[in-house]
Amino acid sequence: MGESSAAPVLRKSDDDIANGADSGGPSQRQTGGDILESNVDVLIIGAGPAGLMAAAWMAHCGIKTRIVDKRNTKIFSGQADGLQCRSLEIFDSLGFADRAWKEANHMIENPGQDGVIRRSDRIPDTIVGLSRFQQIVLHQGRIERFFLDNIKKFSKDTIQVERGVLPTSLVIDETKVETNDGYPVTVSLQHLTEEDSTPKQQVSGSKVPDGLFRSNLAQDDEADLLSERKPGSGNVEIVHAKYVLGCDGARSWTRKQLGFELEGEATDFIWGVMDIIPITDFPDIRMRCAIHSADNGSLMVIPRENKLVRLYIQLKEVTPDASGRADRSKITPDMIFRASRKILHPYKLDYEYCDWWTAYQIGQRVGNDFSSHNRVFLAGDAVHTHSPKAGQGMNVSMQDTFNLGWKVALVAKGIAKRTILSTYETERRQVAQDLIEFDHRFSRLFSGRPAKDVMDAEGVSMEVFKDAFLKGNLFASGLSVNYGASDLVIKKESDELLAKGLPVGMRFNSFKVLNQADGRPWHFQERLRADGRFRVVLFAGNVLNPVQKERVRRFCTDLDGSGSFLRKATPPGAPIDSVIEILTIHASKRIETELLKDFPEILHPFDEHIGWDYDKVFVDDESYHEGFGDAYRNYGVDKERGCVVVVRPDQYVAWVGRLEDFTGIQAYFEACLELGGIYM
Amino acid sequence: MGESSAAPVLRKSDDDIANGADSGGPSQRQTGGDILESNVDVLIIGAGPAGLMAAAWMAHCGIKTRIVDKRNTKIFSGQADGLQCRSLEIFDSLGFADRAWKEANHMIENPGQDGVIRRSDRIPDTIVGLSRFQQIVLHQGRIERFFLDNIKKFSKDTIQVERGVLPTSLVIDETKVETNDGYPVTVSLQHLTEEDSTPKQQVSGSKVPDGLFRSNLAQDDEADLLSERKPGSGNVEIVHAKYVLGCDGARSWTRKQLGFELEGEATDFIWGVMDIIPITDFPDIRMRCAIHSADNGSLMVIPRENKLVRLYIQLKEVTPDASGRADRSKITPDMIFRASRKILHPYKLDYEYCDWWTAYQIGQRVGNDFSSHNRVFLAGDAVHTHSPKAGQGMNVSMQDTFNLGWKVALVAKGIAKRTILSTYETERRQVAQDLIEFDHRFSRLFSGRPAKDVMDAEGVSMEVFKDAFLKGNLFASGLSVNYGASDLVIKKESDELLAKGLPVGMRFNSFKVLNQADGRPWHFQERLRADGRFRVVLFAGNVLNPVQKERVRRFCTDLDGSGSFLRKATPPGAPIDSVIEILTIHASKRIETELLKDFPEILHPFDEHIGWDYDKVFVDDESYHEGFGDAYRNYGVDKERGCVVVVRPDQYVAWVGRLEDFTGIQAYFEACLELGGIYM
Repeated sequence: MGESSAAPVLRKSDDDIANGADSGGPSQRQTGGDILESNVDVLIIGAGPAGLMAAAWMAHCGIKTRIVDKRNTKIFSGQADGLQCRSLEIFDSLGFADRAWKEANHMIENPGQDGVIRRSDRIPDTIVGLSRFQQIVLHQGRIERFFLDNIKKFSKDTIQVERGVLPTSLVIDETKVETNDGYPVTVSLQHLTEEDSTPKQQVSGSKVPDGLFRSNLAQDDEADLLSERKPGSGNVEIVHAKYVLGCDGARSWTRKQLGFELEGEATDFIWGVMDIIPITDFPDIRMRCAIHSADNGSLMVIPRENKLVRLYIQLKEVTPDASGRADRSKITPDMIFRASRKILHPYKLDYEYCDWWTAYQIGQRVGNDFSSHNRVFLAGDAVHTHSPKAGQGMNVSMQDTFNLGWKVALVAKGIAKRTILSTYETERRQVAQDLIEFDHRFSRLFSGRPAKDVMDAEGVSMEVFKDAFLKGNLFASGLSVNYGASDLVIKKESDELLAKGLPVGMRFNSFKVLNQADGRPWHFQERLRADGRFRVVLFAGNVLNPVQKERVRRFCTDLDGSGSFLRKATPPGAPIDSVIEILTIHASKRIETELLKDFPEILHPFDEHIGWDYDKVFVDDESYHEGFGDAYRNYGVDKERGCVVVVRPDQYVAWVGRLEDFTGIQAYFEACLELGGIYM
Repeated sequence: MGESSAAPVLRKSDDDIANGADSGGPSQRQTGGDILESNVDVLIIGAGPAGLMAAAWMAHCGIKTRIVDKRNTKIFSGQADGLQCRSLEIFDSLGFADRAWKEANHMIENPGQDGVIRRSDRIPDTIVGLSRFQQIVLHQGRIERFFLDNIKKFSKDTIQVERGVLPTSLVIDETKVETNDGYPVTVSLQHLTEEDSTPKQQVSGSKVPDGLFRSNLAQDDEADLLSERKPGSGNVEIVHAKYVLGCDGARSWTRKQLGFELEGEATDFIWGVMDIIPITDFPDIRMRCAIHSADNGSLMVIPRENKLVRLYIQLKEVTPDASGRADRSKITPDMIFRASRKILHPYKLDYEYCDWWTAYQIGQRVGNDFSSHNRVFLAGDAVHTHSPKAGQGMNVSMQDTFNLGWKVALVAKGIAKRTILSTYETERRQVAQDLIEFDHRFSRLFSGRPAKDVMDAEGVSMEVFKDAFLKGNLFASGLSVNYGASDLVIKKESDELLAKGLPVGMRFNSFKVLNQADGRPWHFQERLRADGRFRVVLFAGNVLNPVQKERVRRFCTDLDGSGSFLRKATPPGAPIDSVIEILTIHASKRIETELLKDFPEILHPFDEHIGWDYDKVFVDDESYHEGFGDAYRNYGVDKERGCVVVVRPDQYVAWVGRLEDFTGIQAYFEACLELGGIYM
């Protein structure tokens, strides 16, 4: 396992590849043959949302990274489009949620529908109060654009997607996988010409972008891409990497190299998808809604940006053959549209403009392994596939690499221990299994025929459907994820009572607090930027109470001591907040406290070039213009005594303890960080 | 008047210039000599905030425009930096308030300070509830960047600032000024070389950007720019324009060509300005505050983005000479910094990083004329100068051209009557006069010595100062502007009672309403985009009441009639909302009403290509996630009977009337628009 299962395709320097690279050598060199070799910390294969999220982490953490994709262009229309609350929180931590929020269509309300197309109920699309964001819809092309801009900015142009590049072999040197030096993974890359890497997309002269070539009804095209290559076109190169992230989709090349499998079943349900500007008298066309017709199948309406509406349409006329595959050639926009008209009858439906269309076969599968030696990882559709209707695919895929990226980055930098890498699989496998279970239940309800009456056991009761829809909303928000115990997540019931609104293993929820120095209100989550730093949130309680003030002073003295995790984690000469940032939220009145007088200096560190730091101490107090966040009450923290919370770089709550439990927090960081370790 | 007072500097084609251009001729041609001639609808001279705002309107309205500036680069640091609420509302209507809001420092609170530096009070910096924005601080260079990006996007790259271009003569052909055809204004432009147009900025090897060369302590440099020009470098061209906007600053070249003057006095007060990262134990360094020392003068603290703080420092050591001018050579960063240390004593002040510095002499002046023949206009510092401390200059300058730009654009397009152009001077002169009066009072209070006691009549009482500070905040927000009656603003007291929260002449305030079709909450002002369209806001009241429904129906029948202002204003073949957009806010429950059933089609027009318009009907109802805007109550409109409000393209309330008063609204548009006129 871990050895490439593909025959090597390189001709001149197979020996060089098999020998691996000198880890200390120059980062780019010619071998004895004509083939370029180079070293890189992280190689990302695939530049869809999962790959781009990984690249964003590397850009924010300053990791030497390459990202390649076999296609020669990004996505411009269609594909995935739903953005859940948690994805927007993540985008905000990277710095571009505002761009998505501004351009997207906002999902506010949806009416359930029954067999004769009566509106059966109206419900808010996002559970009220769950997040500071609500779910929105925006097509994948725009989201990829935001990522590309963000990666460019934070990597200072050093990380750019290399398109038209196809990996052809992958070899892991098992003797090197457990050391921190060296580049144990070797990948050969084939640079395709422009023509080779352009997908054969449009059929029968149609001008409408057709997504079938990316659908699960299409066949693999790696072999085609290689065999159709003109003689002499393109170049081969060899890359030696510390880590390789396979974000290359449902038919992942990386997964095949590792010999891993997806496990699960396809169903007989085939669905079509169309993005159109509808001309219709159906009254709820601008709301997400599900329509179950009595005999003609189901349809889902997803209103989108720029007057577009996405329709998911059950295609009852198409069925899989004996091998379980449906015949892709039968599926046309016209056929999908006719099916949607039947379902919507007696309402009228027409369109002049279609932006994109595709079709897919529903199936749920999860990978048997998520990584090889914690050196090559699979993420996104490469380890879980399911139907797109619940709007989960892109979100869960991005959240996979949002979980993985900072771990790889911190280990590559020598800040974190290699052992934390195994939490990727334990944490994300559970999410993937929950996802396909959710999707399985949801798809069955959705593709099934409505029940005629309570005695109709084969049909789907609208009550059951509505209930699933509501429960699904919480799951679909991405906010119900609760990572299990590990070196990174310390679950101790007694301590968790100190902050009942901050369950360990779940994302740090956001409420508004004020900056002590200038009074500006901030959603606290806005201060938890995705920059690779852990954070210690000191709920300092009532600092005007002398007893509490003394507790805060003692905690800070320990924090400031030469043996503390904070001092030991900080590289020599670096600012004290380089690896771990201390943020304070206190509960006294803002105007009765002074930053420089009432708070130990370690909470607002002094820098000889720029003075004191005015952006680290916050207060749970009323704002002038934006109300009262009531953060202590919402986080369930005692306003007098406070508590201490460790937050991971991905905003998940990692540890909760009393101010006196310095040993506990010290132990947390000693288990996961290389304190006094190597810094690169 | 109106003839150029400068000697012509062109050598080859003086005759061509004097003859003016053929209005119907080609838009670009060579004359008998070597000089290029061309026609343009609007020529903007000066690419500071006033000029860029004007160019933004032209870009949004699709007007053929050129904008030139004598400098060869935009601003990168320093200069003006305060952005008031109204400016942010305007940026939002153009589409980039979010960029400013995200990057800026937010002004939340400021403590008044007294002679011995005790905190005398804390007050919110922006009056609570005044606007959906609060004032922020961000340097002029970023704001110019947002404008440049916005102009590029909306003009599809056709409007770009041409830098290093100096106008050398301006001639108005008075025989053509009142016709709608032809290009009555002729301007010669000198293209400078890179070297010629680079300001002589940095003195004595300092690396800190010095703004003195743009200060009012510097001399004019037009003559230098021309005389230092190397022989043969650069080219001359001639531009024939319909309209010329002089946005070329306090020493406006355009103003001088017109022979106009600024009227007013300079004072003896000299102030220095520094943008530094302060290292200080002064506790309120991250809040806007004013410090009056007993004997060492005054200082103002303006916290900014990126840890910077701007200090305005009174320079008591520098005084003007007999001619009223201060000696610029005496003023150095070191001298300014020493002055600020004295004022802040006993608090310590240091810095390592200085971003920019300058100095200026306080004076208040207003132009005697704002336009010549309503063909050449002056805006911004070209018609009013004052001290920068109140953060008004950039705001009022931008608001000048936000008032002027759409009027020129709509007249140039043949949509509006030429008569509306005279409202520019009547509306903005009042604002300029209010501004210098405010500044005069504020500067005297600020530069004066604090009163020793109540008997000290020469000193400034801290009570009076605080009172002025508070009142100033309302003025400084830009939201107290109330334009006088004209063809564009119809003030009839009886009708104004129909919408007490929407005073005619003031900007349309913003409250949240929901989109009827999808339930999304919008700040209503977000729907009043700066696209050059007038808007009719139909407060439809309770549409479920049959009597009211009938009133709405009748209003819509009139609106839809062939003689209505709406039909007559719309060019043949254009969408019905091209010139005037009808927006509806009703007061029934959203879920009890249906867009297609309960509202006449003219309120959500049908288009054969894209169906009904889902973005024109709103409701005053509670949202799921963002509370209740309570718009009818806040606008002071009766929830049963409603009313009709006309809003100008710049968001000012223009007319208020009953639904039955169709004659009134028809008369409004007949007075200001060319109904059934020329469309270009």
